[in-house]
Amino acid sequence: MSRPEVVARLLAALGDRVDTTESALERARADKSGHAATGRPIAVVRARSVEDVQATLRIATATATPVVTRGAGTGLAGGANAGDGEIVLSVRAMDRMLEVRPDDLLAVVEPGILNADLNRALQSHGLWWAPDPASREISTVGGNIATGAGGLLCAKYGVVRDAVLGLDLVLADGRLLHLGHRSVKGVTGLDLTSLVIGSEGTLGVIVGATLKLRRLVPGEVRTLAATFPDVRAAAAASAAVTAAGLQPAIMELMDAASLAAVHALLRLPGPTPGAAQLTVQTDGPAAEGEANAIGAVLRTAGGTVSIARDAADGEQLLAIRRAMHPAMESLGTTLIEDVSVPRSALPAMFDEIDRIERAYGIAIPTVAHAGDGNLHPNFVFEGPEVPPRIWDAADDLFRAALRLGGTLTGEHGIGVLKRRWLADELGDDQWQLQRDITRVFDPAGILNPGKVFAS
Amino acid sequence: MSRPEVVARLLAALGDRVDTTESALERARADKSGHAATGRPIAVVRARSVEDVQATLRIATATATPVVTRGAGTGLAGGANAGDGEIVLSVRAMDRMLEVRPDDLLAVVEPGILNADLNRALQSHGLWWAPDPASREISTVGGNIATGAGGLLCAKYGVVRDAVLGLDLVLADGRLLHLGHRSVKGVTGLDLTSLVIGSEGTLGVIVGATLKLRRLVPGEVRTLAATFPDVRAAAAASAAVTAAGLQPAIMELMDAASLAAVHALLRLPGPTPGAAQLTVQTDGPAAEGEANAIGAVLRTAGGTVSIARDAADGEQLLAIRRAMHPAMESLGTTLIEDVSVPRSALPAMFDEIDRIERAYGIAIPTVAHAGDGNLHPNFVFEGPEVPPRIWDAADDLFRAALRLGGTLTGEHGIGVLKRRWLADELGDDQWQLQRDITRVFDPAGILNPGKVFAS
Repeated sequence: MSRPEVVARLLAALGDRVDTTESALERARADKSGHAATGRPIAVVRARSVEDVQATLRIATATATPVVTRGAGTGLAGGANAGDGEIVLSVRAMDRMLEVRPDDLLAVVEPGILNADLNRALQSHGLWWAPDPASREISTVGGNIATGAGGLLCAKYGVVRDAVLGLDLVLADGRLLHLGHRSVKGVTGLDLTSLVIGSEGTLGVIVGATLKLRRLVPGEVRTLAATFPDVRAAAAASAAVTAAGLQPAIMELMDAASLAAVHALLRLPGPTPGAAQLTVQTDGPAAEGEANAIGAVLRTAGGTVSIARDAADGEQLLAIRRAMHPAMESLGTTLIEDVSVPRSALPAMFDEIDRIERAYGIAIPTVAHAGDGNLHPNFVFEGPEVPPRIWDAADDLFRAALRLGGTLTGEHGIGVLKRRWLADELGDDQWQLQRDITRVFDPAGILNPGKVFAS
Repeated sequence: MSRPEVVARLLAALGDRVDTTESALERARADKSGHAATGRPIAVVRARSVEDVQATLRIATATATPVVTRGAGTGLAGGANAGDGEIVLSVRAMDRMLEVRPDDLLAVVEPGILNADLNRALQSHGLWWAPDPASREISTVGGNIATGAGGLLCAKYGVVRDAVLGLDLVLADGRLLHLGHRSVKGVTGLDLTSLVIGSEGTLGVIVGATLKLRRLVPGEVRTLAATFPDVRAAAAASAAVTAAGLQPAIMELMDAASLAAVHALLRLPGPTPGAAQLTVQTDGPAAEGEANAIGAVLRTAGGTVSIARDAADGEQLLAIRRAMHPAMESLGTTLIEDVSVPRSALPAMFDEIDRIERAYGIAIPTVAHAGDGNLHPNFVFEGPEVPPRIWDAADDLFRAALRLGGTLTGEHGIGVLKRRWLADELGDDQWQLQRDITRVFDPAGILNPGKVFAS
């Protein structure tokens, strides 16, 4: 069927939910990765209900038209980028919290609700949803689930996989499935809820989620900043904290290049050349004692430590970390990488980054969620396309992470940007098996084609 | 191929790993559910290595012979029962801990290690693996993973799904896959690790596991016992504890019939007729304060509360709960049920049990992991087969749990005993989808046929 005929069918079924303005189509080509799809989608459907999603997918199946599901478009791997001939299915307007149950520590939400809006609404109930990607003010819960997003608090409070009880999923042919359960325990059949978490739009469209909540953590936080002569010392110190059996809520590492860029952006006095920083936060009833114990470990490891005892001072220390993304954008186009390694391998991974910087003659400003071993090396370059030389350096970086027992992506996903390395980590047999599983959900392959499993 | 020919092939490839003695074949017909398979398997292969498992599966595939994987045979749903013409693949002898990394909070183990043996070995490192099924002294880690086993500590410390980073899986055709990762975070491809957890031998044979560990919890435990005039009051009190934002490590509920049976078995003075009991344990640095706060909630809810301040006295209180399974066995043949409901629905579920007891004229002694809403109603009867009338009552019970937003099985699995209700919970579309996923792993359907998805 011709593209105008597909659009006509969508308009007939969905009326004003269908947006074909140039600006809407153009915006749907890109996410926050800096990468954009080739060509332009044919329409953006702004679903307001499960029925809208089902109607869109029935038309897509009947006309064999590919569908790219989209939330707020804040992804960092190109997973929601829509290109030539595709239908964009936006669930951003489905943003209601349908139910909150403090007694059962759960909430039922639509996928388009922003992470931060959800948490503001939960606060009055004394509750929160733990996943806290740096994008939380602008990213949707559905997108967090589809990518398996992480954040700063994961080592102590878990990842998305630990915080979802059930999902409502519309299949490629428009059928609606209810996956998972509302109880704490449940092992009935295969755990399709977990399978859909992080599946990046390849299995179905998430139209509802039953979230596992936590009580707000009582007590005041304590925040430490520790400066080290070099990044390896900072990485070794963070590994020493974990090895000592201490569990901070947050433990962020910034290398010298990252600190310099942020200080310049925020017009702060320049940091000590070469020095790296750990920012650590403890929380809960034992926050004070834990902060002191962590401070002692960091000093023993060669750090110069300061402790902020109130939340405002602590937030100021963390503001430097939170300014990393805008600081990188101020330097040029950025490819934000996302490898994750066992915590003990963090110093060795920084050695590898140092080696790659020298081998390719480039700077790779790097921040890390040091508490969980997740690094974000930033490749900065001019122009809209990642140059081949940068991809070569990234390739070297990925292989180093795999050698150290790590993984290609800790929290951003594969999308389009890492699909060519996927089989290197999974092996060919598992790659094929995973792709065959997507075909059980989506036999015609219309859901987010070219993402994750495209070779 | 004839059965003797299959056995001959196994003997040629695996020699003394193959056991065809009558006693071995007979033992493999049953687990601890009280249910046994029809007929008898043709051989028990006692694998000592991954290669043994691969060799067995290659022969099974080549000869189209069904394979039932078995650990210690302590399951409660018949999932590991092997019947007519099947090969039993025992991984019980693969029981080594291959690696423990306190700095990365992980251990790599073979599947046959007993849960309690693992935890004794981890203790010297100051570590533990949280899943604690009541069977922990006799059940294997591989079996815990294959069934998605739970335990007493789940509300505070999570379920198996939260405690496994990666799995090594041998497919039906003998290929070995490495699923998951060693890092805290990892979203590379589909989460097949979670898919295999609780898959009850239908997707492949687990030959290795990378486990996520916790530090031993510091401090002394506090244990409370609270007596209530009836079971509904006890259930309402437990829901009130959760609703008050308190998080005990353990919160177990026993109804009057359970208490009576255990007191008789242990030759204790008879309990107050009709009375039900909650046994609650707090741990960690704040154990004392939490115990006092929980005690106050329980008293307000009408309970008579006593607090044990040392571990030995606390263990004595919990010993009554731990004697439940032998107490039931002393009454007759037992069908242990395993429904799970949202915590707030626990009182309503006890109302349903009361209704079913009266409707069918039977007693259903029930214990519950009240902290997470998981109930174990026990149907007791004479003889080896579950009578139709008991199945009718169980059917009524399952439907009541589903109506209350619950699930068929919280921690035991579907096995053979609940397969006829599986589609009632999943819906026909999801049932078929899940079954089709098993066929991606096992196209010929030789892995544990007749379990979980058999209609």
